[in-house]
Formats: sequence, C-alpha cells, structure tokens
Amino acid sequence: MFRFELIHQSRRSRARVGRIHTPHGVIETPNFVPVGTNACVKSLTGPIVDELDVQLLFANTYHLMVQPGEDTVAKMGGIHSFMKRDKPIITDSGGFQVFSLAYGGVAQEIKSKGTKSGASSIIRIREEGVWFRSYRDGREIVLTPEISIQAQKKIGADIIVSFDELPPYHTTPRRLRSSLDRTHRWELRSLTEHKKNVQQQALYAVIHGGVDPQLRSESVQLLRSHDFDGYAIGGSVGKNQTEMIDMLQLLMPQMPEHAPNHLLGIGDIPSIHACIPLGIDTFDSSHPTKCARHGLLFTNTEMVRIKKSAYAQDMLPIDPTCDCSTCTTYSRAYIHHLFKAHELTAYSLASIHNVAYMVRLMKRYREMILEGDI
Amino acid sequence: MFRFELIHQSRRSRARVGRIHTPHGVIETPNFVPVGTNACVKSLTGPIVDELDVQLLFANTYHLMVQPGEDTVAKMGGIHSFMKRDKPIITDSGGFQVFSLAYGGVAQEIKSKGTKSGASSIIRIREEGVWFRSYRDGREIVLTPEISIQAQKKIGADIIVSFDELPPYHTTPRRLRSSLDRTHRWELRSLTEHKKNVQQQALYAVIHGGVDPQLRSESVQLLRSHDFDGYAIGGSVGKNQTEMIDMLQLLMPQMPEHAPNHLLGIGDIPSIHACIPLGIDTFDSSHPTKCARHGLLFTNTEMVRIKKSAYAQDMLPIDPTCDCSTCTTYSRAYIHHLFKAHELTAYSLASIHNVAYMVRLMKRYREMILEGDI
Repeated sequence: MFRFELIHQSRRSRARVGRIHTPHGVIETPNFVPVGTNACVKSLTGPIVDELDVQLLFANTYHLMVQPGEDTVAKMGGIHSFMKRDKPIITDSGGFQVFSLAYGGVAQEIKSKGTKSGASSIIRIREEGVWFRSYRDGREIVLTPEISIQAQKKIGADIIVSFDELPPYHTTPRRLRSSLDRTHRWELRSLTEHKKNVQQQALYAVIHGGVDPQLRSESVQLLRSHDFDGYAIGGSVGKNQTEMIDMLQLLMPQMPEHAPNHLLGIGDIPSIHACIPLGIDTFDSSHPTKCARHGLLFTNTEMVRIKKSAYAQDMLPIDPTCDCSTCTTYSRAYIHHLFKAHELTAYSLASIHNVAYMVRLMKRYREMILEGDI
Repeated sequence: MFRFELIHQSRRSRARVGRIHTPHGVIETPNFVPVGTNACVKSLTGPIVDELDVQLLFANTYHLMVQPGEDTVAKMGGIHSFMKRDKPIITDSGGFQVFSLAYGGVAQEIKSKGTKSGASSIIRIREEGVWFRSYRDGREIVLTPEISIQAQKKIGADIIVSFDELPPYHTTPRRLRSSLDRTHRWELRSLTEHKKNVQQQALYAVIHGGVDPQLRSESVQLLRSHDFDGYAIGGSVGKNQTEMIDMLQLLMPQMPEHAPNHLLGIGDIPSIHACIPLGIDTFDSSHPTKCARHGLLFTNTEMVRIKKSAYAQDMLPIDPTCDCSTCTTYSRAYIHHLFKAHELTAYSLASIHNVAYMVRLMKRYREMILEGDI
C-alpha cells in the first residue's frame, strides 16, 4: 500500500513534488506535519483538524505508551479508530522523546553550555536499549528497538520510525561515533522486528551522525542500503539555521530519491523555506500550535503578536487574505480579548489559524515547484 | 421588538411554553441559558455554539467592563458583532459579580458559617452605588445603576438587567430590609436610565428579599407595578433545593404572567426539573460547562465521571442516545484519555456534550408541557 510517487523534480534545485500513498490516503509533498502528541492536536477537535485538510499527523509513541498505553490503543482498534482520524498518521519511535526529555533541546543545551538538564530521567543505556523514568509517574520504563516497534504496531499508524539514540549536541567525537554505531544496530533491529509483521505500515530510518558530515554520509550510505520505506533526518544538525543548511546541502544529494525524505522536529517557516529547495518532503513540528497558544500568529508579512495592546480595537482579521474559520469569523480585537481574558477558546482559534496557514503555505510551495519557481 | 408570547399554559401546573421575541431572534421557553462570561462560552468556539442551537447566551457585564471594557465592545459594534453571534444575548448588571466575588457563593458562605470571604474587594456601599476593587488588577471601580445600565447599553445585548444589591445569605432582618429597599431604588434608577435610550433592549427587574417570604412578595408587588420587560429572581432563595422550592412555590403565583420569568444563576438539572412546573421560563448557569471541564458528563441515567478508570477502555460514546458531535464521533475511552493527558480538547468535547444535553433536555420539557405531561 505504501508508495512514494515522484510527480515533478525541479530543474533549478533538489525541490520536488510528490505523493506518499498510505493505507489511509495520500500525502502531497512537500508538506507540513502537525504534531498531535497524545493523539490530539492541542486545543483542536478532530472535526476541526479534518476541515483544515491536515494530510499527515504526527503522534508520539512515548506519550501514548505512558497514557493511555499502546495496549489500550490496540484494544480500541488502533490510533485511527481511537482518535477517529481516517487520514494518514505517523508515530515516532519514542527515542527522541526519551533522550530529549533527558538532555533538553539543543537550545537549552547550548544555553547551559553542555550541562545535561534533567539527565537523571535516563537510568542507563545499554546495547539492549534504554531504561528511563516516566515523566508522568517516575516508574521505570524500558525501550528497545523491538519494544518500540511492537508498540508502534499496536498503535497502528501508517508510518512508523526506527528506534534510535539521540546523542547530546555537546558530545565527544568518540561518543558520537559509538552512539551512531549503536543507532545503526538499533535501526536494523527495528527493521527486522518490523519485517516480522509489516501489517501495511511503512518504516522510516533515521539518519544520524550529529554535526559531523563524515558520520552523516556514512549513516545515509549504510541505512539506504537497507529496505526502509522512507528516510528521516534526526538528531542535531547544527546549533542554528546556517549550520543546519550547510549540513543538509552536503547530506541531501546523498539521500535516496525513490523514498520520502523527512526532517524530524523542524517546522519553523524560515527553515522550511530553506529546506524545500534541498529536497525535504515532509516536516513535523509542534511550532505552529505552540506559537498559537502563545498568541504568535503567522501571516505572510509579519508575526502578529496578538496579545499586544495595539490589537485591542483592531477590527481586521488576523490575516485578511486567510480563509480559515478564525479569520473569516473573528477580529484581532476579539482574539486579543480572549487571550487577555485567559479563555481557552483563544488557543483553539489561534491554532486553527496557524495550522491553516501552514497547510496553505505548503500548498503554495508545491505550486511554486510545479511552476518552476523553486 | 421585544415581546413575550405565551404559546401554552399547562392546566396541571404553572408550567408554560412561550417564545421571547428579540431583535436577534426567538428564544423558546422554558430554556436553558449557557454562560459566556467573557463573551465566549468557555472552551467552545462561536461556530460550535451556533451548531448547538443555543438560543440565548448570558454574558457578564462586570467581566466585560474589566476586559476588554464596554467602550471597546461598543467600538467593535456591540457584543453581537464583537463575538460574531447573531442570536439573542443577555447581560447581567454586574451587581451579582461584585457582591458574590466579595461574599463568596451561598455554599461557601454556609460552610464558613457566615464569614464573608474576600469581602475586602468591596470598598464601600452607598446610596449612590458600590465601590470595589477589580479582581484583575485591584484598581478601584464604581458601579451605580446608571453606570451599569450605560455599560449594558454600550455592550448592547438584547436583554439587560437592573442593577441590584446582593445581600449575603447570612444577614440580619434589619439589614435585609434595608438592602431590599436600596435594591428597589437602584432598580427604579436603572429603569429611568434605560428609558432615556431604550435602543431595542429589554430590561429585566430582579426580585429580591432573601429568604423572607414577606419581603419577596413585597419585592414582586413593587417591581411588577413598573414597566419592566421581564422579571428575574435573584439573590439567595435558600440554602438548599427544598428551601428554594418552598420559596418559589409562594413566589411564582405572584409573578407577572405576561412577561418572562427568569431564575438567576440556577441551572443544575434537579433544580430545573423542580422549577419548570412552577413557571420559570429561563435558567442561566455555568454549571453544565463547569461540570464538563471537571469531567462530569450528563446523561439521562447517570452522571458519567469520565476520569474514572472504568472508562479507560470503554468504546461507547458518553451517551449512546445523544446526537452531539462528541457522542457521534468519540468513545468514552478517548475522552477519558484526553482528560488524563490534560489535553484542552477534553474540555471542548465535554462542553459540547453537556451544552447539547441541556438544549435537548429543555426541548423535551417544552414538548412534555405541550403534551400535558407537566
């Protein structure tokens, strides 16, 4: 059922337009993948997400294992039935969540100059897998490639991801080497486990190697020689956008062209703009919904900081060119008011707009590639 | 424009079916009036409230004066335009909010045996009006009958309410007498202020007199002799449902039959059930939406406490007989999960159900009255 169809390859860049076929429908690429950590896009109901034409949704295996548990999702007929979404869903392996909750994000890590904040949530990392404490109740959890894949089988998304180790941004070359080798072994174990029971799911590999171009190349070469259905780029690819772009410029020409190329956890607009010409097909990020809940609203001309008093009596919609239900219904003044009054509805209205903006933005990118403008 | 049309008077009780005509449409009675304190039903968007067929919405003048301010609402074209609701809206006078925030609710007052919790928010009460501190930023605010009515004119709801004093449940007969006399003077000043500029709004009087039947009767007799468009019952009518029903059984036969009779701030299902045969036309309360946010979901047979682990794998909808979008889409297990995962979407889905339940319940009561069953 899973198949990547290349529709158009730009002559000006590595940008391309494609279609990812899944058991629950088609994902047009390039596309943005909103995050619905707990099988729910924060502050939105399913019918609203459907109306927004979100083609692929990203759920987090680690969170679903903790609550409600993968067995419950399975008993409820799998994640599509559980959350009543009949369009494509992707889950991650849980690895990123475990390691990023332990190490903190790259930004925090850089600020704290390499101190591992909260590293204590990881109890031990062994060849077998990782032992850690649940963020929720502190109980000990084990994740191995086999356990992650089995959990993702129970959850039942269309696309699943190999279990990997996320090395800290600040690490030694020796540790990065050792982490990469282990990640590769974990990913091949993931592939073996997946092949025992494919059940129409696609398995993505995750390219690692940190900020070392040589290791990144090695990771691509090794993983593309195996039968993965798609290739994601994971881990830290740099401490800022310039470093990320430098790395991706080296890396992307080595990526398999016959399969989807996904960039994990990056979804801010400047990064998307820079990465589409490099050939990234899909981007997942909680950035648009997180921004929305902070009152940061996307438009083509500026980031509207709706809590600013300048908007208190502004009768215009957030974006007069936007056709989302928030913009066609409400004024900036009303949304400003709801934020000031701490009404939860503010988060819903803002999230509707930011997700609609991303959907439209990606559609526009696909058109531009087809028209030869990228 | 405002008119109360009596459709059917029960022969078995004082229950009646009617229609309140307003500039923004008809309210069928008896009906339930959800509260949208800040010009927003908590956790719901306007389009969802519209779909739920909420015929009358209750907004709080005090909160709107504090945020965004009545002048802003006026500049945005009034509350209908501001919140994009083209159906009827009622605002209260602000008095209840000021006094109840100062005295606490009856329940707390009884628990604390008459101690006025937080009474310090009221600075002074004079014949002119009440001086108090904003709950938001502590600044001093003055409310007088004239200021309240002017604010409600600026907000621009279809139905507005006279400015009244809410006496504490625990008070002396002398103080209650004195409070009632002042309330009457304030209400007549409200009526005078209203008549200067009716602008198609209807003004309701508020019957007071606390738990003293004699004072309550006196209040009805005095207020019904003036040209109010509707009559609300305010203040404490007892410390429990039995006391309330006893009082209303005495009071309701004295209420004007040609005008809508509203019961302020009472909207739990047993109270509604007991009050409809007594002739109450409309009930406002935040009870159903507050219950929803606490995971207490209404059904005909029981209160579903959705956070209980018994629902973790329950594939049934909250109420299999309910046709709301939550029940026709989601299982109890999914909603249980969203509450456990602290997803804001849980509050939206639960509020949709509880409001839909109230809308359907009131429709059923109207049918039962028409069919001669009440």
